[in-house]
Amino acid sequence: MIDETLPLAPPLSVSQWFHARTPITLDSLRGRVVVLHAFQMLCPGCVAHGIPQAKEVHRQFAREEVAVIGLHTVFEHHEAMTPVALAAFLHEYRIEFPVGVDARTDDGGDIPQTMRAYGMRGTPTLVVIDRVGRIRMHAFGSVEDLALGALIGRLLVES
Amino acid sequence: MIDETLPLAPPLSVSQWFHARTPITLDSLRGRVVVLHAFQMLCPGCVAHGIPQAKEVHRQFAREEVAVIGLHTVFEHHEAMTPVALAAFLHEYRIEFPVGVDARTDDGGDIPQTMRAYGMRGTPTLVVIDRVGRIRMHAFGSVEDLALGALIGRLLVES
Amino acid sequence: MIDETLPLAPPLSVSQWFHARTPITLDSLRGRVVVLHAFQMLCPGCVAHGIPQAKEVHRQFAREEVAVIGLHTVFEHHEAMTPVALAAFLHEYRIEFPVGVDARTDDGGDIPQTMRAYGMRGTPTLVVIDRVGRIRMHAFGSVEDLALGALIGRLLVES
Amino acid sequence: MIDETLPLAPPLSVSQWFHARTPITLDSLRGRVVVLHAFQMLCPGCVAHGIPQAKEVHRQFAREEVAVIGLHTVFEHHEAMTPVALAAFLHEYRIEFPVGVDARTDDGGDIPQTMRAYGMRGTPTLVVIDRVGRIRMHAFGSVEDLALGALIGRLLVES
Repeated sequence: MIDETLPLAPPLSVSQWFHARTPITLDSLRGRVVVLHAFQMLCPGCVAHGIPQAKEVHRQFAREEVAVIGLHTVFEHHEAMTPVALAAFLHEYRIEFPVGVDARTDDGGDIPQTMRAYGMRGTPTLVVIDRVGRIRMHAFGSVEDLALGALIGRLLVES
Repeated sequence: MIDETLPLAPPLSVSQWFHARTPITLDSLRGRVVVLHAFQMLCPGCVAHGIPQAKEVHRQFAREEVAVIGLHTVFEHHEAMTPVALAAFLHEYRIEFPVGVDARTDDGGDIPQTMRAYGMRGTPTLVVIDRVGRIRMHAFGSVEDLALGALIGRLLVES
Repeated sequence: MIDETLPLAPPLSVSQWFHARTPITLDSLRGRVVVLHAFQMLCPGCVAHGIPQAKEVHRQFAREEVAVIGLHTVFEHHEAMTPVALAAFLHEYRIEFPVGVDARTDDGGDIPQTMRAYGMRGTPTLVVIDRVGRIRMHAFGSVEDLALGALIGRLLVES
Repeated sequence: MIDETLPLAPPLSVSQWFHARTPITLDSLRGRVVVLHAFQMLCPGCVAHGIPQAKEVHRQFAREEVAVIGLHTVFEHHEAMTPVALAAFLHEYRIEFPVGVDARTDDGGDIPQTMRAYGMRGTPTLVVIDRVGRIRMHAFGSVEDLALGALIGRLLVES
């Protein structure tokens, strides 16, 4: 029933992790559904919709079933959205799931590495990855809770 | 994985249907996931949360996969929430899924028949029934979209 | 500063009052600012916006300064929005300010008398009357709290 | 009617202005009602409630009647909420009214000068100043639009 030719999610290129004792790889999350929330701390749509939704997914599902990962994909205002600013943001918004800082490219371009590898168009972007590592949703902008829940429910049950 | 001893959903006892050419039975919906939304038209929590959620489920899922059924379980203010008033309500709130009027009991009691058979405690009540007719959720009050979506997603995939 | 030629608010034609021991006339409210909220119990915009706003005005301002009056201006679905249904509605929505039922006309027309006298276009309609009985706002649809508050504040202070 | 003994609002101590060609003093705003919104860019309550309200006041009232002034009163996470970060924040949240950076004290304390002079307890704090420079509201936390509107309306009319 599932298209076996679906692409595997590219690896995460992260320069710094918050709320993670050791670097997180998608390989280490195999067997779980991964909800990857790409955001910028000064993106109004992320603050109003994307982040509350990611927090709610983190709260409602068992950790060994669903892994919520934040990815700080800064592609503008780099001087404002630094890791030290992100740390304050995570504290103030009580974000407890792991958040990685998307790594800058060697050529100093604005678009960071993971954002580029996934072809993300902006923030917020939601990527849902199934238990075997395939991308099953890639959405720019708001995704309704009902639709996200339905996809997670499907991915948890399918064999 | 599913508890085979789960009870089958009791039949619906409906005195009048809206938005249904012929009476609807749960038997006729076998093979689909059924989202049964029990409400009263003058219940603030139903109007603010339950009904918008039911409309959204109706909008997002394919009809042949998920059947949304409204049930007008009037247990108070019977003189106000008549079928003629319900018809106006359905029109004004643009509710397009089938809605049944829960049948009064012969003894003239306040609690109508289906509400009694299901042991509902009030409105809104959400009941989710799987493809083979078993009750998989029975919740009084608000249910979060993410949780409802996840259950529907699971029920759509499980064999 | 105030246009002395502004029209006086027409009298209310009410067939039945709720939450009022004796019939209320605008004359009896002279000296107070009157916030007249015209609604229908099955009008979604009234339930979502107009009525919560009227309740909030009623809660925030002193009774001897600001009088909140509801007016049930039924112009459609007359058979559904009867006084007995309105009584249940007021109970369920915990509306405590006085509410009058706009009187039907002798010719049996759909538009009730006060609605016609004020030239209201539909529901919700908000009419604000100053301390000397002149109409200072007449708005169809939603009015922002900030704008309504500012007008009430002005009317309370002007001599 | 107004308590003539009310204190005058202390002067603003601002190290940098955004959206102002020259430094703004309260003296220069005499004759207008001033709505002073003290916030921190990483304060969730400011972002969710205070800033949208300040933007709405700025939108609804005439500039020559009501002056909306933002004050970035950073008292924590100083390294994150720098002027360069504030500039990005103002851009992303489309804040167009003047915003001043509350000046740090010489002793390097966490609480900046204006915040200290006004005795503010945290953010968001809303201060409303009348046409002659007296503080008429000083509120920590959310203020309802209806109440803020009523105060502004009063202050605009009183002589």
